[in-house]
Amino acid sequence: MTGANVHFQPLGRKTPSEKGKTLLELARDAGVAIESVCGSAGKCGKCRVIIRSGAANLSPPGAGEAKLLGDKGVQTGTRLACQARVVHEGDIVAEVPEESRRGHHRLLAAGEERATRLRPAMTKALVELPPATLADMRADDDRFLKELRRLARSSSTMSAGAHRSLPGALRDGSWSVTATLFRGKEVIRVDPGDTTKDLFGVAVDIGTTKVVAYLIDLASGRTVATESMPNPQIPFGEDVMSRITFTTKNPDGDERLQKVILDGLNSLISRLSTSSGVPSENVLEVVVVGNTAMHHLFFGIPVRHLAMAPYAPAVRTSLVYDAGQMGVDIYPFGKVSSLPNVAGFVGADAVADLVSSGLYRDKDIGMMIDIGTNTEIIAGNKDRLVSCSCASGPAFEGAHIRFGMRASTGAVERVWIDPASGDVKVRTVDDARPRGICGSGIVDAISEMFKSGVVGPSGRIVGGGRTGRVRKGRDGVLEYVLVWGKDTETGDDVTVAQHDIEEIQLAKAAIFTGVSVLMRKLGVRCQDLSRIYAAVAFGTYVDATSAVTIGMYPDVPVDRIRFIGNAAGSGARMALKSIQVRDLAERLSKQVEYVELAAEKDFQSEFAKAMFLPNRDLSRFPSVKAGTR
Amino acid sequence: MTGANVHFQPLGRKTPSEKGKTLLELARDAGVAIESVCGSAGKCGKCRVIIRSGAANLSPPGAGEAKLLGDKGVQTGTRLACQARVVHEGDIVAEVPEESRRGHHRLLAAGEERATRLRPAMTKALVELPPATLADMRADDDRFLKELRRLARSSSTMSAGAHRSLPGALRDGSWSVTATLFRGKEVIRVDPGDTTKDLFGVAVDIGTTKVVAYLIDLASGRTVATESMPNPQIPFGEDVMSRITFTTKNPDGDERLQKVILDGLNSLISRLSTSSGVPSENVLEVVVVGNTAMHHLFFGIPVRHLAMAPYAPAVRTSLVYDAGQMGVDIYPFGKVSSLPNVAGFVGADAVADLVSSGLYRDKDIGMMIDIGTNTEIIAGNKDRLVSCSCASGPAFEGAHIRFGMRASTGAVERVWIDPASGDVKVRTVDDARPRGICGSGIVDAISEMFKSGVVGPSGRIVGGGRTGRVRKGRDGVLEYVLVWGKDTETGDDVTVAQHDIEEIQLAKAAIFTGVSVLMRKLGVRCQDLSRIYAAVAFGTYVDATSAVTIGMYPDVPVDRIRFIGNAAGSGARMALKSIQVRDLAERLSKQVEYVELAAEKDFQSEFAKAMFLPNRDLSRFPSVKAGTR
Repeated sequence: MTGANVHFQPLGRKTPSEKGKTLLELARDAGVAIESVCGSAGKCGKCRVIIRSGAANLSPPGAGEAKLLGDKGVQTGTRLACQARVVHEGDIVAEVPEESRRGHHRLLAAGEERATRLRPAMTKALVELPPATLADMRADDDRFLKELRRLARSSSTMSAGAHRSLPGALRDGSWSVTATLFRGKEVIRVDPGDTTKDLFGVAVDIGTTKVVAYLIDLASGRTVATESMPNPQIPFGEDVMSRITFTTKNPDGDERLQKVILDGLNSLISRLSTSSGVPSENVLEVVVVGNTAMHHLFFGIPVRHLAMAPYAPAVRTSLVYDAGQMGVDIYPFGKVSSLPNVAGFVGADAVADLVSSGLYRDKDIGMMIDIGTNTEIIAGNKDRLVSCSCASGPAFEGAHIRFGMRASTGAVERVWIDPASGDVKVRTVDDARPRGICGSGIVDAISEMFKSGVVGPSGRIVGGGRTGRVRKGRDGVLEYVLVWGKDTETGDDVTVAQHDIEEIQLAKAAIFTGVSVLMRKLGVRCQDLSRIYAAVAFGTYVDATSAVTIGMYPDVPVDRIRFIGNAAGSGARMALKSIQVRDLAERLSKQVEYVELAAEKDFQSEFAKAMFLPNRDLSRFPSVKAGTR
Repeated sequence: MTGANVHFQPLGRKTPSEKGKTLLELARDAGVAIESVCGSAGKCGKCRVIIRSGAANLSPPGAGEAKLLGDKGVQTGTRLACQARVVHEGDIVAEVPEESRRGHHRLLAAGEERATRLRPAMTKALVELPPATLADMRADDDRFLKELRRLARSSSTMSAGAHRSLPGALRDGSWSVTATLFRGKEVIRVDPGDTTKDLFGVAVDIGTTKVVAYLIDLASGRTVATESMPNPQIPFGEDVMSRITFTTKNPDGDERLQKVILDGLNSLISRLSTSSGVPSENVLEVVVVGNTAMHHLFFGIPVRHLAMAPYAPAVRTSLVYDAGQMGVDIYPFGKVSSLPNVAGFVGADAVADLVSSGLYRDKDIGMMIDIGTNTEIIAGNKDRLVSCSCASGPAFEGAHIRFGMRASTGAVERVWIDPASGDVKVRTVDDARPRGICGSGIVDAISEMFKSGVVGPSGRIVGGGRTGRVRKGRDGVLEYVLVWGKDTETGDDVTVAQHDIEEIQLAKAAIFTGVSVLMRKLGVRCQDLSRIYAAVAFGTYVDATSAVTIGMYPDVPVDRIRFIGNAAGSGARMALKSIQVRDLAERLSKQVEYVELAAEKDFQSEFAKAMFLPNRDLSRFPSVKAGTR
């Protein structure tokens, strides 16, 4: 150690300079959250920092980095934090501009939940025993299990937690104890006296972007507390594929990703405990949902094969692991359970969506769409269900969009363009001065630009000259000024560039291709869909009309589109409360057919059609064609 | 910290002087093994040290300590290491005399083993699968379990270890893998290719005094390596009761005792791995036996209730825990299993004794006696088995005997006295110069003293005056010189004092009381016993004739007494090799009746009779009465 440091300005954070590490890694060491969407591949350009001194201690920019930064960037000392690596141990001062910092995200923690009859996997039973005497010297476990068998009319086993707590509990409770049973079969804990009303569990939705945890009173069914956080794996890659890539490039990648998500969950559990006053030691079970990659990473199951054809998951079946063995900070002999997966890219979260939507018991054909970095779609009814996963990409999370950002303070989330005057009105998260555009904002913006003639069916910017909002950008291609610099937080114009529109076209085309393929599998037309259950993983509800206008959702009357929020979280809560829901999920995960889109012969042509606004086949979007949207 | 140290001479060991700690605790910190038999109660007097300087930094001796040390002891600066506590942090120099050091112990690792048909709980199966393709995208677990079910004709579950190893193994092994199953039901591991011949387990006997571990090749049944060590819990108390007391006096006592035995077992496993070349990662199961307290301490189950009437064990049933959760360093998703207990003081070791002796299937009535600090006795045949535990105490281990010691170098292990001349011949462990007397030596000595008339039936020293070997000791009571100082290691005479004879009388009376009570329960006389299976926990075989002569073993012809060595270890090996043996053990542990001796009405009178040599009721020892022994 030379005593040299890397200083992150203007945040006043520093960390020892360490040869071989990148600035992004050092920023993480210093507790500075820098954006990175591409998993440190040097591609997304989100992790720009400006080197104020000590540039000579860093590796020089490579050709790819220089190209991405542009001449001006290189001249001003800008670097990609993920590419600049310490080569000499000397002091370095790096400025982290506002736009490179990860902000406070709005997280959609809500979600509809269908009424669930309470039948948790964890149950409690009061057991009263004859005391041990010299005339009845049976072992504690024999004495206890015999009485429990009589009460429960079925035989049980005991796990380590029960063995450890039994002898003390029997004597402290004067031979009256409360047994905690998992699925009525395995005694995991014995407490002195009657604690039957003290029964808690935690439901967790591990999204690629956010993690939400709910503390549930399993005696009443009530949600006692909710806590959420950005997925702490984000620094290792913002989307599923970059995280899988991270594990293939680092021998300990799986363990590191498991560790950060476990640490994250443990901090959520600690916050739930603090805010509710329920000791985490009294939490008996955690039920987890997430997409297949998040699920595997959490449970320590290798993910590398998920990225290789034919993308088979390692594990479909519902899991039950011991909390202590997993390192989840609840009662150590409690359980950590998961819902089952369907396929490599249709995971336990989609099964939770399905369970909470109720689609699986509808008579009429409906569809569940859960939009995220991967969009899962399940279509069908009580008789048949088909599913697919669409690589819709992180554009809705703000990646690849010049002014894209998550749904945090200052993000444009709604857009209205007056077709006559061309005037633009926007609404932002927290009503702050605009800083950028989040997912629902960009969908709105493109829909409004299309309806007002700024953008043609091919997605090309063709009009709007009269308003002065359409111009050639620095790179020589057209862009549309959504908010003038005088009204924004940074003073720069917030624009929608031709490239941004193409990114959204790619994303919505991916989604609608999935919709079309599933429709054909079921032999129905979009208009026949009686219900669309719209779940979202990003921060704000997308406007249904806008989503139909750009051809992302099928063209059905708005009243058939039902927003169900974070449906994966709702499904996790339902599963925590009811083993019948879990058994249902296990059945459904086997029943749901999986369609690999890339293997479908019409995939390319459907995708090409869906690149248009709303679609080259206008007969599929009659309301848009008729101008009634 | 003052920088002051406590030096242990002549060993050259030191440790920082720490206020509040006793010299015994500090010796432990310094890696110096000092004898202590009473669990630091200041009673056994084995932990004498001589303070060479810094005595003023220690608490002064209390009345009890002063009495035990005697005036001379106090004057020479002798202290009990367990009582002398640091009160000022200054340098202290303590000399540890040879007799206070714990030496190298001879450990009886052998033991007879009946032929066992190999049917281990861990089995392996080669599973060959159709590869995953776009036309067959099933999850790895579904694909694997279906084929396994077809092969095994029963359904299995997978544990975390299997989930983690499955996807890599399938692809590394080109869809041909070896599954490891526990009890044919639970897949705990999947390896690429064919590893069906690679199947190892470890059997462990956790004795109060010694721990022996055997590495077994479960594919061939062969014992590949054996390692043993003194039980590392000894510093916390040499007998079961002192260790239980330690847990009642220290809030973290159970955890500390569990930690040291786990660390000890892990070092044995590491040594087994080194000496055999079998990686410990390839050890799939550990089967453990031990008395009920050792069993509970090892598994982390509280033991304090074992010391309170009615002495019910917390757990009787056979246990199966996950190795990783326990902290046993084998394959982390492997198992640690135990044989069942019978009662608070008849444990899994006695069940192992029973299984390996074969008593449970004899037609004629026999008896199994496993002598140790607690002596377990099981009597009966295939129709009925009764058991008891006798508090025989640690006298056979050398405690409470002035020149008592374990069966280590220089211990007198055999004694012959010529009745005519009174000449004495002894044999010592390693044929070294005598230092003291071990368990078999003291039994021999008393038997020979009795036969040659030195000792009368009451145990009092009554003769031998002519040889000059009988004299008044320093304390004014009679003692018998077994070895003159000129022939001993230390130059001091090695003697058997009146008190030592009383200790052995108490121990053998406890054992024979158990024998008598069980005989009466079965309605048979000692002479009817067709077989005595003699197991021993201390270092050397006791001579059968001597044991009968002093009235410890029932009076049967010598050819009916069969020494079976460390029968608990043999039983553990058999259980590791065969689930049928485990099922048998589980059945036997329920079937064996337990007799609490203290609750028997004849206990006191039987005990009083058994205090005599061989017994006040000479009709029970016809061969001794006839002088044919």
